[in-house]
Amino acid sequence: MESIFKRTHMCGLLRAGDIGKEVCLNGWIAKRRDLGGLIFCDVRDKTGISQVVFDDKIPKELFDKANSLRSEYVVGVKGEVRQRQSANPDIATGDVEIFASDLIIYSRSETPPIYIKDDDNVDMNLRLKYRYLDLRKKKMQDNLAFRGKVCKIARDYFYENGFTEVETPDLIAPTPEGSRDYIVPSRVEPGSFYALPQSPQLYKQMLMVGGTDRYIQIARCFRDEDLRADRQPEFTQIDMEMSFIDEDDIIAVNEGFLKKLFKEAMGIDLKTPLPRMTWDEAMTRYGSDKPDTRFGFELHDLGQLDVIKNTEFKVFADALASGGDVRGICITGGAGKYSRKQIDKMTEHIRSFGAKGMVWIKTSADDISSSVNKFFDKDALKKIAAEFDAGNDDLILIVADKPKVVFDSLGYLRRAIADEMGMLDPKQFNLLWVVDFPLFEYSEEEGRYVAEHHPFTHPKDEDIPMLEEHPEKCHARAYDIVMNGVEAGGGSIRIHDRELQDRMFKVLGMDEETIQSKFGFLVEAFKYGAPPHGGLAYGLDRLVMLLLGEETIRDVIAFPKNQSAQCMVSGAPGPTDADQLDELGLELKK
Amino acid sequence: MESIFKRTHMCGLLRAGDIGKEVCLNGWIAKRRDLGGLIFCDVRDKTGISQVVFDDKIPKELFDKANSLRSEYVVGVKGEVRQRQSANPDIATGDVEIFASDLIIYSRSETPPIYIKDDDNVDMNLRLKYRYLDLRKKKMQDNLAFRGKVCKIARDYFYENGFTEVETPDLIAPTPEGSRDYIVPSRVEPGSFYALPQSPQLYKQMLMVGGTDRYIQIARCFRDEDLRADRQPEFTQIDMEMSFIDEDDIIAVNEGFLKKLFKEAMGIDLKTPLPRMTWDEAMTRYGSDKPDTRFGFELHDLGQLDVIKNTEFKVFADALASGGDVRGICITGGAGKYSRKQIDKMTEHIRSFGAKGMVWIKTSADDISSSVNKFFDKDALKKIAAEFDAGNDDLILIVADKPKVVFDSLGYLRRAIADEMGMLDPKQFNLLWVVDFPLFEYSEEEGRYVAEHHPFTHPKDEDIPMLEEHPEKCHARAYDIVMNGVEAGGGSIRIHDRELQDRMFKVLGMDEETIQSKFGFLVEAFKYGAPPHGGLAYGLDRLVMLLLGEETIRDVIAFPKNQSAQCMVSGAPGPTDADQLDELGLELKK
Repeated sequence: MESIFKRTHMCGLLRAGDIGKEVCLNGWIAKRRDLGGLIFCDVRDKTGISQVVFDDKIPKELFDKANSLRSEYVVGVKGEVRQRQSANPDIATGDVEIFASDLIIYSRSETPPIYIKDDDNVDMNLRLKYRYLDLRKKKMQDNLAFRGKVCKIARDYFYENGFTEVETPDLIAPTPEGSRDYIVPSRVEPGSFYALPQSPQLYKQMLMVGGTDRYIQIARCFRDEDLRADRQPEFTQIDMEMSFIDEDDIIAVNEGFLKKLFKEAMGIDLKTPLPRMTWDEAMTRYGSDKPDTRFGFELHDLGQLDVIKNTEFKVFADALASGGDVRGICITGGAGKYSRKQIDKMTEHIRSFGAKGMVWIKTSADDISSSVNKFFDKDALKKIAAEFDAGNDDLILIVADKPKVVFDSLGYLRRAIADEMGMLDPKQFNLLWVVDFPLFEYSEEEGRYVAEHHPFTHPKDEDIPMLEEHPEKCHARAYDIVMNGVEAGGGSIRIHDRELQDRMFKVLGMDEETIQSKFGFLVEAFKYGAPPHGGLAYGLDRLVMLLLGEETIRDVIAFPKNQSAQCMVSGAPGPTDADQLDELGLELKK
Repeated sequence: MESIFKRTHMCGLLRAGDIGKEVCLNGWIAKRRDLGGLIFCDVRDKTGISQVVFDDKIPKELFDKANSLRSEYVVGVKGEVRQRQSANPDIATGDVEIFASDLIIYSRSETPPIYIKDDDNVDMNLRLKYRYLDLRKKKMQDNLAFRGKVCKIARDYFYENGFTEVETPDLIAPTPEGSRDYIVPSRVEPGSFYALPQSPQLYKQMLMVGGTDRYIQIARCFRDEDLRADRQPEFTQIDMEMSFIDEDDIIAVNEGFLKKLFKEAMGIDLKTPLPRMTWDEAMTRYGSDKPDTRFGFELHDLGQLDVIKNTEFKVFADALASGGDVRGICITGGAGKYSRKQIDKMTEHIRSFGAKGMVWIKTSADDISSSVNKFFDKDALKKIAAEFDAGNDDLILIVADKPKVVFDSLGYLRRAIADEMGMLDPKQFNLLWVVDFPLFEYSEEEGRYVAEHHPFTHPKDEDIPMLEEHPEKCHARAYDIVMNGVEAGGGSIRIHDRELQDRMFKVLGMDEETIQSKFGFLVEAFKYGAPPHGGLAYGLDRLVMLLLGEETIRDVIAFPKNQSAQCMVSGAPGPTDADQLDELGLELKK
């Protein structure tokens, strides 16, 4: 007996043009119907399904075998492609069917615990436990193939542009305070540990010091943090770095990549150069450093309006007096759409950003009303509405507080409302660069400035003189690529000058010991001639999710972890032997 | 001031055709000579070097700046390409030099602790500590670029052949007895651990169960074992798997890859199909399951010769009586070359394989002599020599012992001697498949049969009936690709039938609990319809090393670990915070 029926065609690719051919398919039984003298089976592989017919004119042994088929049995089928009596327009192979002349059953299946259907909405943990069944869905295989294609396009592009793909190590040095590092105990030096990299950052900078000049890697990264819908303990970056360049070079190279990516993966002609927007503009117009520009609802600064400046309404007056902001957005068509109760819910939600309240104004054809009628007469409200060019059915939402609270609140609201109003078209892709980020962020928790990106980020040249005096005013040579309100990637020009690096460390309040233990080897490397360099890293999982219009990165990863960082298929993490711990010089804490 | 001089050319690529052009180079100062009114500098990037000349007709400020240059300073230089007065035929750019008109010093360098010279033979640990300097050597950058190219060719080939690149997880379930697993403590479940994968084996098989059909990945793997020259704690595999195929399909697909690889990376036309040799033949002819076929010195079985069969020489007689072997090799031209002392050294060396001794015979034009003259007269010796078609200056080496000891000893000797005699041409590539491996190996240590490859390896169909009765006689549907005596890759057809898998587990003496804890999820997956499948994995580091003719994989890895599994650049592994251990539920053993 043959052990394999060698495939001639994939199940999803048979067409009317194949009628008359003898073919051999391999795949899984997706469906089986028994019509007495006829058995119909749908045979599935990753390309789709074909209908196979067994009639009672075939040898009884074969017919009986066909009769024994059940869902998810794995089979090989030989037969002739014939025209289907009544075509099925819903599937690509709907014009044809195979009249079976031979059948091999490779393996049988118990009743599968989940349906193999693209739109089956079973619990995610169950899908992940039976991932090998979940992956049989055409959508999932298409997603994996699409992800593979994105990687291929990235590697092709950077290879063609003179980049060298270099693998950096996964077993690296642990850093003090690296509490979000996964660590790996060493057996050779019990009591010592490796860390898994949160990114290849330090090694790719060393490659630049080593003369690699143009580096690319699609790199696995690890971060032990509490999980959200779009976070995984292990994730993948498309990571690049270049020497002897400035930000225009990095942006140009990456726009070339994005153009190719959109053309080849999506069939979309991306117009480049992409818009660039400073961080300041992004915040003041969109309340976000990752603005979604597919719709309006832009923020307006109301602090300059006389009716606001001179108000006795304490919330506004106090905010302005203490250096805060009064800003608002106008939801076109939102007045009739949102009830007071719904607006109260929004107010509730923005408390998580620190907002203590929200003011609303509604316009209609013949009236204007607000939650602050006591403080603002209709004329004053109309002046505010005029600032937004408000129409006849609009909802204005105003927040007054510290700038960060105002931006976070309004930035969240404009996108959440646009989403609710169905204005976020996943097939429209708005990309832009956000540039000139603040160099530092003041950490209330640590009582010092921390690096907004990382301590190797180069300040804007014109800001270097005020590094020590006015760190809060310094901007960075950093840039994010933003796609539909999501940060698809980010990077910066790095410091290559040791004196400037030393000044940065000082502003960050890092003492020699901390510098040595965290970055000692990179600082050491910089003693021997570092070239000007910079780079960028894309979050691959998120990028693929955005392009596919998926709502979770779990649908673009073959074997993702669940929200508790568990692998539902294998049961990881799990216990280990006491012997092994012993060998590693460790014991479980009682 | 410009912060970057934008590069027009790479340093190593200027040619006579560029004479007259205004160019801009970026790179490192490789050498600087001061001839009074002239300063010569070699500027280096990864492509090579160009000579730059500063004469005293340029502005004094510029000349002084040039005068301050030292080795490994990083610079940008603008100037005109001119013909060199006396060409330097040793370098590719030797016809030209650049007359500098402007210079920027990006950064300075202390005196580098190692020389940036391809053939500098400094201690490996020092090279690894200053890897960022070591990588500036052209050879090292070329090696990295070559490795990148090998990956590119692999991905292109498999992509073109319908394979999907899928990333499998790095944080997987630990296995009991997985003592060579690196483990990663979980913070979310203190006391639980992930393991880093020794290979993507289980996950790629799950992908086949999931319908991926053709999988490729260039995957990082981890193994915590004592290191040898060609072993690293983390290493990389080119890993592939296919469904609905047999070994001929796997071999054909991979020969296609190897053909493309040799053509595009080496400029060599590889003749396919490659030879296939059974494991039995490889052992009896070469004493090795990874035969180096670039030279002869094949093993001969002497047990059938009357002079051996009937000898009173106890070593031979005992070996044969107890089911062992008497085998030998003939080193053509070895009689005059090897002294008795050197032969004693060989004998000493093969003790590590368990050999208790070795017999030699030397031929010359008019005599034959041996270490066993007492037991074999010249006629008998001549009969043995005739078996090898020995000539006039040959050295015959004979080992008698258990087959494994004989094969290991002679297999080692033939290659070590060929190496010593300069017969191993690194530019000649002999590839072959070794097939039909034994399915099991009897482990004296464990007192049971263990899987020669892994427990999912499919037995040869004709051997299945004797699985339980004669496991020692069963062969596997396994195949290795062997290149110049090194295993470049290996794989097998996997079992997809649950009953056969159960029989395998039984023969391996595995109880239900062990099966569940080690492979439970794969066994579970196989309940729901597993396709026939198989695959292969190449050791990328070793493959690249072989192709480049390097002697250590450390020269083809950007940041390798040293022999103590340390990263000399970063100092990994290192200590971690007590707090972090605490959070992981661990403490250091006192």
